[in-house]
Amino acid sequence: MTEQRTRRRVRGGGGAARRAERTAVRIEAAKYIERNIPNLEMLDEAALQIIEHNAETVLEEIGVNFVDNPEALEIWRKAGAMIDGERVRIPRGLARKLCETAPSKFTQHARNPERNVEIGGDSLVLAPVYGPPFVRDAEGGRRYATMEDFTKFVKLGYMSKYLHHSGGTVCEPTDVPVNKRHLDMLLTHMLYSDKPFMGSVTEPSRAQDSVEMCEILFGKDFVQENTVMTSLINVNSPLTFDSIMMGAMEIYARNNQACILSPFIVGGAMSPVSVMGTLTQVLAECLAGIAYSQLIRPGAPVIFGCFVTSIDMNSGAPTFGTPEATQILNGAGQLARRLNLPFRSGGGLCGSKLPDAQAAYETAHTHNAALFGGVNFMLHACGWLEGGLVASFEKFVMDADQLGILHRLAAGVPTDENAQAMGAIAEVGPGGHFLGCEHTQSNFKEAFWHTDLLDYKPFETWEEEGARDTVALATARVAKLLTDYQQPALDPEIAQKLQAYVQAKKDSTPDSFL
Amino acid sequence: MTEQRTRRRVRGGGGAARRAERTAVRIEAAKYIERNIPNLEMLDEAALQIIEHNAETVLEEIGVNFVDNPEALEIWRKAGAMIDGERVRIPRGLARKLCETAPSKFTQHARNPERNVEIGGDSLVLAPVYGPPFVRDAEGGRRYATMEDFTKFVKLGYMSKYLHHSGGTVCEPTDVPVNKRHLDMLLTHMLYSDKPFMGSVTEPSRAQDSVEMCEILFGKDFVQENTVMTSLINVNSPLTFDSIMMGAMEIYARNNQACILSPFIVGGAMSPVSVMGTLTQVLAECLAGIAYSQLIRPGAPVIFGCFVTSIDMNSGAPTFGTPEATQILNGAGQLARRLNLPFRSGGGLCGSKLPDAQAAYETAHTHNAALFGGVNFMLHACGWLEGGLVASFEKFVMDADQLGILHRLAAGVPTDENAQAMGAIAEVGPGGHFLGCEHTQSNFKEAFWHTDLLDYKPFETWEEEGARDTVALATARVAKLLTDYQQPALDPEIAQKLQAYVQAKKDSTPDSFL
Repeated sequence: MTEQRTRRRVRGGGGAARRAERTAVRIEAAKYIERNIPNLEMLDEAALQIIEHNAETVLEEIGVNFVDNPEALEIWRKAGAMIDGERVRIPRGLARKLCETAPSKFTQHARNPERNVEIGGDSLVLAPVYGPPFVRDAEGGRRYATMEDFTKFVKLGYMSKYLHHSGGTVCEPTDVPVNKRHLDMLLTHMLYSDKPFMGSVTEPSRAQDSVEMCEILFGKDFVQENTVMTSLINVNSPLTFDSIMMGAMEIYARNNQACILSPFIVGGAMSPVSVMGTLTQVLAECLAGIAYSQLIRPGAPVIFGCFVTSIDMNSGAPTFGTPEATQILNGAGQLARRLNLPFRSGGGLCGSKLPDAQAAYETAHTHNAALFGGVNFMLHACGWLEGGLVASFEKFVMDADQLGILHRLAAGVPTDENAQAMGAIAEVGPGGHFLGCEHTQSNFKEAFWHTDLLDYKPFETWEEEGARDTVALATARVAKLLTDYQQPALDPEIAQKLQAYVQAKKDSTPDSFL
Repeated sequence: MTEQRTRRRVRGGGGAARRAERTAVRIEAAKYIERNIPNLEMLDEAALQIIEHNAETVLEEIGVNFVDNPEALEIWRKAGAMIDGERVRIPRGLARKLCETAPSKFTQHARNPERNVEIGGDSLVLAPVYGPPFVRDAEGGRRYATMEDFTKFVKLGYMSKYLHHSGGTVCEPTDVPVNKRHLDMLLTHMLYSDKPFMGSVTEPSRAQDSVEMCEILFGKDFVQENTVMTSLINVNSPLTFDSIMMGAMEIYARNNQACILSPFIVGGAMSPVSVMGTLTQVLAECLAGIAYSQLIRPGAPVIFGCFVTSIDMNSGAPTFGTPEATQILNGAGQLARRLNLPFRSGGGLCGSKLPDAQAAYETAHTHNAALFGGVNFMLHACGWLEGGLVASFEKFVMDADQLGILHRLAAGVPTDENAQAMGAIAEVGPGGHFLGCEHTQSNFKEAFWHTDLLDYKPFETWEEEGARDTVALATARVAKLLTDYQQPALDPEIAQKLQAYVQAKKDSTPDSFL
């Protein structure tokens, strides 16, 4: 199932759906990126072969633990692994062989087919920050995230031209019980955006809820035949697969839904304090996890994930945008491509507490590393702050603007006759200027990328307007996008069914904040 | 003269020189970068051939102007070009042929031989911002630059571990007459730093003064045999070579001193509003200018320069860190390598008025583009602000810290047994942690790059310490570096002769601020 292009009609009551469609405002949205430039390959063939050899040694001699999961152990035993307690030792070559049934590329469908994304090959899909318990903005400072914040972020994501994906836990809505917040989050993605989204992974039952809500949104048959969610399965590094994450992955794989199998590593703490050692462990963990997904359902879509950063040995804090993080990202991309699998890594990562210069340096390094390192699915592309503890409203729109740069770079350089501009050079000649020439007049609108946020004004104008820094400009942009936001059309009958499902689920269980 | 490794003794009075040497404090300074990673090649062979063909067409059919320079016209005529007024039309292939005598790599000597740099091949030499008439710091805001500011920047450059070069006009000391400031600037580079530096280009006579001061510092014979200055010759784009810049280049080339031949282009104003068209013009201008340097003295060291950025068509302002600027930089690097010439481009370029997130995004994009695009000499590596109108004290140390990242990335990934860390993975096993293991203990100090500036502290500590942003941290670092600064030792006799030369020159001419 490399390219399922199944089209579907707008489901549910046709009249109401069409009416909703007519009144909707069209929001500008860029297509997912298709790279037209080569990847940067930082590791040479010899280094890659060493890592691949060593990763197989790790799987065979050290093995991985599947914790609290006797069924998984049984599945592995049948597949040919050696089981010793919860330890699974995988003979050299077996995991790699099992990974071969995973598709190299798949389509994740959105409820608006124009927002479908291809994940794998030369594509790059951009998704927002995932997971922060706190939010920050210039006015309110740093505080626990709420459902109101979550909804605002989903709206901002929908309004962000260069963001292809609505994401998952854009922030943790801490005012909703832990065992119910996945319902509200999914409902919000479904109602307030028409971009693709991620499912819940914090309990297998919540993954099941996610599948059932998608069956309401997309139709039951459609979900079984197509991928409509891409969900994040973290490995408990080093070399440990816990039953909660694996339980969620089992449900998604059985339902043909995509998972990102991601070692989550602070190098030096959860892996060796070296790039080669860390990459070896990343590959071993991905091989084991992806192989397991294929044992659950051969052909289930899965992404080779890598969330790895370095550690500050003074403070023990994870650090972002560092050269070692770039090297690991780049090497992991090479390893994923050699497995013919889609590749995921982080996007706008930073350690800074504020959306200041540090945040931007670190974010730009990670954005560049991900673009040139062949990432197919970039989580945390915008809004990430303070090592992932904070989702920042200002940084969300700052980073989202930067993503336009990645689109342009990936497109490569046009080389046609118009781009060669030999007529313009002849027309203007030595000492002239190009501002008024015909070629400039007919090309300037599309020729260069244009920011929607950054300041390009003359110094005097900028000063008169209050000498605003990037954060101040971003505060204004957040407000404008939220004011301009208009909800995308959805068949009211489907919306009602989704709301009823969520209400019934909530009513049937007591609240839990654990 | 690809690799002149001539060593020289410490010149001048031996006893005094040795005494000065003994009392000097050793400042940590990284060696220039030698890349161990591949370049990113954004343009394919077909695109490069189109540009090369078109550039020859431009030279042959349109030609270039050598303004107010009858001798240059005569030199070109003798070399085989067609002269028509000040227009020089160069037959296809002639300029490229003439460029062949330029060295692919050369050594620029510093007065401290440990600071010598190799320019060309896989090397990357980092030099500070050049040219701003204004300075900015958090305390004093934006103001005209003075000689005091200039001296502070030279001291900061000397104290910056990752900066290999003291630069040239780090800012314009506007309190010194225009016709004399080159003397003070050169003297400051010579006295307050022992890193290599650039000569004056604003008048041929000032280039001559620069050569004469170097003869005092290095010895007359040494200067004739070795390159001790790399100076910046801008082309008056499009396709125009003025007599001032060419006059300075003639003096440097005759004295075996290096020039950077740099088209200075805001794309859309001084070149076509397209990447291909701009690259065609860049190549034509570099071919003509470098060929001319070789007509002056075959073998004179010269760098293929490219200072090109895009324009904001709304405001007419130059923009930095944009995708088109990256594409042009990358393509120009490919063109320079095909000519077997050293390549120069910009470093930490940005358009922002403040050292804020915009400045850092734009700077990091340019730093990455230059590293991966094969730049050999990076001017403006640190301190550049507001499109080059401002030299920022804070941004100088912020960017200089970032340059450590480029060193690490360029070094590539170590792959030896220690780096593979298989023992550590076996020792720790599934579910363990690496912080305490032997491999971590013996490697953590050197394993990961460590910032000297950015904040990696826990949130609570950071808040208690005043919740400082990057600029506030940088203000403190500027003050610390200037306090810690100690002048590098120089033979007092040489220092005296240099001061006397400057004084005599100043006394012999009336001040001019034009």
